[in-house]
Amino acid sequence: MRVAFLGPAGTFTEEALLASAPDGVEPVPYPTVYETVMAVHDGATERAFVPIENSLEGGVAATLDALATEASDVRIVAEHIHPIHHCLIARRELDVADVARVISHPQAMAQCGALLRGPLAGAERVSSVSTAEAARAVAESDEPWAALSSRLAAELYDCVVLREDIEDSDDNETRFVWLAPADAATAGTGDKTSIVFWGPGDESPGALVNVLRELSDREINLTRIESRPRRVGLGHYMFFADLEGGTEEARVADALGALRGRVEELRILGSYASA
Amino acid sequence: MRVAFLGPAGTFTEEALLASAPDGVEPVPYPTVYETVMAVHDGATERAFVPIENSLEGGVAATLDALATEASDVRIVAEHIHPIHHCLIARRELDVADVARVISHPQAMAQCGALLRGPLAGAERVSSVSTAEAARAVAESDEPWAALSSRLAAELYDCVVLREDIEDSDDNETRFVWLAPADAATAGTGDKTSIVFWGPGDESPGALVNVLRELSDREINLTRIESRPRRVGLGHYMFFADLEGGTEEARVADALGALRGRVEELRILGSYASA
Repeated sequence: MRVAFLGPAGTFTEEALLASAPDGVEPVPYPTVYETVMAVHDGATERAFVPIENSLEGGVAATLDALATEASDVRIVAEHIHPIHHCLIARRELDVADVARVISHPQAMAQCGALLRGPLAGAERVSSVSTAEAARAVAESDEPWAALSSRLAAELYDCVVLREDIEDSDDNETRFVWLAPADAATAGTGDKTSIVFWGPGDESPGALVNVLRELSDREINLTRIESRPRRVGLGHYMFFADLEGGTEEARVADALGALRGRVEELRILGSYASA
Repeated sequence: MRVAFLGPAGTFTEEALLASAPDGVEPVPYPTVYETVMAVHDGATERAFVPIENSLEGGVAATLDALATEASDVRIVAEHIHPIHHCLIARRELDVADVARVISHPQAMAQCGALLRGPLAGAERVSSVSTAEAARAVAESDEPWAALSSRLAAELYDCVVLREDIEDSDDNETRFVWLAPADAATAGTGDKTSIVFWGPGDESPGALVNVLRELSDREINLTRIESRPRRVGLGHYMFFADLEGGTEEARVADALGALRGRVEELRILGSYASA
């Protein structure tokens, strides 16, 4: 089974994929989260594996926006929670104070603030599209550059690890989801359901309580709720929610039906087994 | 009156500050949002002016996190909504296809995706701490570099505008807030109140409906709600909400009192006149 993931080889997504994957999986790298999600939409791969939420930074905007507005025929079919440990890596041994440029994905930069403001304060910061691209850039240069990356990437690109576990918080874990075409998603097996909803009109934040009441009145717990802008001006939001129970359960189906009557748009992103 | 803002000169924040400021204001640039907020906390300036929410990208994480967890003695005392127009600028006239490196703040990069994926697809992307820092870097280099920046920055750093209004969406506007020490915030004058709350424990998303019900039962409208991770592991969130009415109004004071009984922590970020 071909599985799209955020490449190149050595990203945290590949590290998590290898930990989560059943046998018979062929990982296929894609350059961005958007293209990874669209690989399933376009039928280029049978599955995709993407990060959806980090414990420090919150929701992964590219994944949420693609699922909500671009890939309406793609469903979440499973989830996997993976601890994230960052390493500072370079082509060869190097004093941290001598690093002239540090390269990484902006989210990894945000997670290693103490190191960047302290020992690496003098280094130029350059963004890359993934932590593994950062490792590759460092491996290919003769300059005194370093990357914030995974240990897997250091091994793949033949780099040395200058520092490890450099993240600000011990509580750094990321939730990943498996995506499949809607017609391949097996109904009735989930104990968790992910939805996105918005509208109607300007009252969406005010109307949120009425929407949530449809769930709480039926004693359906939320494990997560997150708002994202609808990109149509200030004051317009869409809400991503994870709720306990599968869509085949009567009370969940009943609640989702009532909820549909209160919003402009409701999309079921998937019903699956919780990790 | 000294006002801290995200510098250097020429940022969108300064552009908005100049549009919003009363007479007698002395703008003082700070290098990061965090340091701008802390300037008021530390008493280095009397006010600060910072972005809090963009219509395309959502909440400004650095501002929200600083207000929620670091600067408990700082209050929002006013808000200002400013349209954002980006320009592609360079030291001298240059064909867009010949740009070797494009420099900007990651949020501006996210707002100009079509240009970056199209005519600038071949250019290296480098992050800067502000759009004005990007303009300054471009102005000081002989290389064929360009910046995504404000028109004000192009003028200040003697650059030429290669393209204007390059943002993906016409609906690009940012909400800025004025910050003051808590003891300088005048009570009773606001028609809008901003709060942040979290907890108790693991049930925070599920308990959200009970919290919001304290507002809706008193017919208090929400104009915004946004969740951010509490940075203590997956499943723990804090919620930022803006509600209609000032803290001196009986029904608002009553609702906030009831709300305080339902959460682990409730902070009033400010009560002020809506824009």
